Amino acid sequence: MFISFEGIDKSGKSTQISLLVDWVKQKGYEVVQTSEPGGTGLGEKIEKILLEPSTKEINGISELFLYLADRAEHVEKIIKPALEKGKIVISDRFADATIAYQGYGRRLDIPWVEELNKRATHGFLPDITFLLDISPDLAKKRSGSEEKDRIENEKISFHQKVRQGYLKLAKKHAGRIKVINGEGSVKEIQLRIRKILGKHLR
Amino acid sequence: MFISFEGIDKSGKSTQISLLVDWVKQKGYEVVQTSEPGGTGLGEKIEKILLEPSTKEINGISELFLYLADRAEHVEKIIKPALEKGKIVISDRFADATIAYQGYGRRLDIPWVEELNKRATHGFLPDITFLLDISPDLAKKRSGSEEKDRIENEKISFHQKVRQGYLKLAKKHAGRIKVINGEGSVKEIQLRIRKILGKHLR
Repeated sequence: MFISFEGIDKSGKSTQISLLVDWVKQKGYEVVQTSEPGGTGLGEKIEKILLEPSTKEINGISELFLYLADRAEHVEKIIKPALEKGKIVISDRFADATIAYQGYGRRLDIPWVEELNKRATHGFLPDITFLLDISPDLAKKRSGSEEKDRIENEKISFHQKVRQGYLKLAKKHAGRIKVINGEGSVKEIQLRIRKILGKHLR
Repeated sequence: MFISFEGIDKSGKSTQISLLVDWVKQKGYEVVQTSEPGGTGLGEKIEKILLEPSTKEINGISELFLYLADRAEHVEKIIKPALEKGKIVISDRFADATIAYQGYGRRLDIPWVEELNKRATHGFLPDITFLLDISPDLAKKRSGSEEKDRIENEKISFHQKVRQGYLKLAKKHAGRIKVINGEGSVKEIQLRIRKILGKHLR
């Protein structure tokens, strides 16, 4: 089983993932916890390029290709082998992120981005995706004065477009993508996620 | 005017380019000498990933996307602005290299790679391309015991496929791609290149 978490930065993905990983392990499953960009050796190098504030302006097409290069390696080296061994894979971001960020956020041609995702993933898709939905205003408050990466440094209007893109994707793939209000308490959100996932694990 | 040089490693591109740049400058033109991968700040970082022997095995799709990310940035930040200012751009490798190496060498889907090249370059193509053709055996002799990058470290059969790919491209684009026998003397080869280019400069 392949589970992905999506949402804008500061939507609480990493907190929720680490709580969920503990719970799934307690249930006796083998879990591989991973993330994009950066889940592989190559991915770490690409992540550094993508997120370093010093990288500044990359044109949209190059940014897209870098995320895809990371994803293709991630699928081949981490996700596919783990799934073949019957493990549960939980990834912080996957293909939907590229549609939301590069498609809706950077306004690249969405059908083309979808086709590239298919090539990069060999058609691998999560069985279930949790979209933690929060407003960019709350995200901004949460990040406060901490240091931001290149993408986090984007204007609030960019994060608005990404959020709306995610919600459009959730409508389109309503069976797979579960929208979770990410503005509640950590415990409340975790319980909602476990309730949904519990049905799939049995 | 946009000129590219192609050929397998050790075909003599950089020697010929630097002689040609001098000659074109002497004729009074402004010249931008550049290369792929690595012609931009982003490109240098990508080049490091692509060529470092320590990167070892990258899957073919990721390798392709990395070269394309480099190219999109190269066109936008270096090639297009220079051409718009009326300069002559001379690049060590361009889009043909991806067809030869990733298409023919790695056996990726060539029409797809061509389409991606178009997206990455916004359709920019060299006005003239010099393909320095040498046998992989001579290339191996020329490189001798010097340290090799990740691509140079490939088996000789890989370089054979790349060479054949280049020759097929030259047949397909006979007007643009000029095949130059790269096994002669440096001076002889340079004179042949100048003779061909001279007709275009007038």
